[in-house]
Amino acid sequence: MACSTYSYLHLSHKFRYSLASSLFISKPSHAFPSTFTTPFPSPSHTPIKFNKSVKFSTQSVSVSATNTFTWDDVVRISQPDSVPHDSSDLSGFFQKVKICNRGSEKQSEFLPFVIEDQIAGYIHNGFANHLRRFKDVFILPQDNSYGGRIGSHVTLHPMLRTPDDRTNAVGDVVKCLGEELIPGIRNELYPVTSSFGAPIFFSLERAAAPYFGIKAYGVHMNGYVEKDGQKLLWIGKRSQMKPTYPGMLDHLAAGGLPYGIACGENLVKECEEEAGIPKSISKEAIPAGVVSYMDIDGYRYKRDVLFCYDLKLPASFRPENQDGEVDSFKLIPVTHVANVIQRTQFFKPNCSLVIIDFLFRHGYMSPEHIGYLDLLQSLRSGDCS
Amino acid sequence: MACSTYSYLHLSHKFRYSLASSLFISKPSHAFPSTFTTPFPSPSHTPIKFNKSVKFSTQSVSVSATNTFTWDDVVRISQPDSVPHDSSDLSGFFQKVKICNRGSEKQSEFLPFVIEDQIAGYIHNGFANHLRRFKDVFILPQDNSYGGRIGSHVTLHPMLRTPDDRTNAVGDVVKCLGEELIPGIRNELYPVTSSFGAPIFFSLERAAAPYFGIKAYGVHMNGYVEKDGQKLLWIGKRSQMKPTYPGMLDHLAAGGLPYGIACGENLVKECEEEAGIPKSISKEAIPAGVVSYMDIDGYRYKRDVLFCYDLKLPASFRPENQDGEVDSFKLIPVTHVANVIQRTQFFKPNCSLVIIDFLFRHGYMSPEHIGYLDLLQSLRSGDCS
Repeated sequence: MACSTYSYLHLSHKFRYSLASSLFISKPSHAFPSTFTTPFPSPSHTPIKFNKSVKFSTQSVSVSATNTFTWDDVVRISQPDSVPHDSSDLSGFFQKVKICNRGSEKQSEFLPFVIEDQIAGYIHNGFANHLRRFKDVFILPQDNSYGGRIGSHVTLHPMLRTPDDRTNAVGDVVKCLGEELIPGIRNELYPVTSSFGAPIFFSLERAAAPYFGIKAYGVHMNGYVEKDGQKLLWIGKRSQMKPTYPGMLDHLAAGGLPYGIACGENLVKECEEEAGIPKSISKEAIPAGVVSYMDIDGYRYKRDVLFCYDLKLPASFRPENQDGEVDSFKLIPVTHVANVIQRTQFFKPNCSLVIIDFLFRHGYMSPEHIGYLDLLQSLRSGDCS
Repeated sequence: MACSTYSYLHLSHKFRYSLASSLFISKPSHAFPSTFTTPFPSPSHTPIKFNKSVKFSTQSVSVSATNTFTWDDVVRISQPDSVPHDSSDLSGFFQKVKICNRGSEKQSEFLPFVIEDQIAGYIHNGFANHLRRFKDVFILPQDNSYGGRIGSHVTLHPMLRTPDDRTNAVGDVVKCLGEELIPGIRNELYPVTSSFGAPIFFSLERAAAPYFGIKAYGVHMNGYVEKDGQKLLWIGKRSQMKPTYPGMLDHLAAGGLPYGIACGENLVKECEEEAGIPKSISKEAIPAGVVSYMDIDGYRYKRDVLFCYDLKLPASFRPENQDGEVDSFKLIPVTHVANVIQRTQFFKPNCSLVIIDFLFRHGYMSPEHIGYLDLLQSLRSGDCS
């Protein structure tokens, strides 16, 4: 494959934006608000009462628009409002869902990526142009002499019949395209399927998944402790050295689902690596549902489905990171965590969805909250198959 | 309103079938299977292992095709299989979801029921013809002289401006149509809205709700006990005197959401009436999510959204029915309840959905089960707004 002949001179604006985004240079809509307000009280086990609107709040806290906040910032912002309010406002939660589901109006810029007559992903027109020279791997729509287009989707060359053939050929293309087009190569393979549990068409480098718009699956675990009838969540703060979302808040354990490993097994592995939780404890984690989202950002189309787990931990347990990816952990009352999600963008975006799902399942949301059904539905905005 | 001039002579086959159905004369697809098989083991807190298919089962139990089963039948059928199997099969659960979601192919037989430019419900063409003579209440599509149709929806007469005007006028029509067309009048009003929490257009007799295809909301509660790390559900058996689903299995407490009462308040009321649970206990019930379904059966279009609650009860608690609607209660291990749902149609159909949702949230289902995502999604098959 003639990698060296390829030129990167003509990278589009969209691609450059996509690069910036992957390095966590947020767009304005993603920027941290410069002012946070601190609403609402938090009785355990009873639905949270939220402020109707920020205009009712009685105090405000300033935080710089970076991800260099400290645990002190988190604790300060998480506190219940000094003046409780009766009305309910879920807008901070809706905003977090929106952040994970951008660009739905740009779906028309993507071509279906079809394998064995099934849609395996979606590829941006612009990114498809970068694939055009790999004629022994991809079949792309061609412009005909009348200015029209022959074909309406991207597919693999029919000579690539087996999953291994496809994995190797597409893997070579990804290497050729290089870090500048697909940054953050991890040398970790994701399965490419039409739906979860369906036969695997081939395996694809994890960093390339959103460029091919394949569905990616993950396991996310809320680790919690129950003390005096109150639930508290163990929250991690990601290492500043992480290439993605450095310094942001995270679950106790979470990870993408690579090729060839089952959800439960992967969770046990992540628990060990990220929080030092032995299998004797992590095997008690229960699968509790799913959230999903679809996010279009430049050339990237993320279609993620996250399996949500709950693990009730002994009060004596202390997590210890093993792989250097987590800076530190803190045990925070669930209602205070909810405040942080409502008021800030401190959490890695998709973690917010999994925690909001936890809030629903554990009775912190109530049908009496305006928008209850809409918010619940929005947690599965992506193709959940 | 000239009720007495109306003739019931021309009731359609569909209407007669609808009547039979409302009296719980099951169609073949609803009939109880004459033979049940008894699969699978059930460690607490770990996902259930289901048989791949009934053909693997090692024993079978015969139960007559009626709803006159006893608790002994329930207990016998609920037992774990004597030979555990590794494979997973959710087909018995899928079947219960299907039973609540019939007739989607018949949606074209219904006309939207539009109020204030919003869809409030759906009315069957045949039922709409019964409304045609109430010209001061309903505006219906008319056949023009060319054989075409003027208008494509049913609406209320523009003179009926206020909710009260509409409630009274439609209430009079329902009375006029009588028990033969709309059986089981309860003198209980349901709110008619476009979505939950939206302004109420008017209120409608509960029994008439499916004939106007309005969305109906309810609260369903799983009452459970935790003993030696194992969860057990309190299951009710409906009185044989109940007009709907007599003798069938039910939740500890559940009920439709009438006009003018909030979900939480209604749940406390139902807990008191159905199971003698004092408010001091029932106020601890937590809202935990939602299931929905849409079921077309003759003239009836049910569009139900059920708010699911969990209540963890003290081990010493014994429910006592107050209103004569429940014959008796029994405390059954969750895994055994799951067996009953998989293997029988003993449960009132919509209760199965709420219990399957409980199984998902409490870790009795696992992503490793084939069809996990499909089953989870299917629990919200109806318009969940």
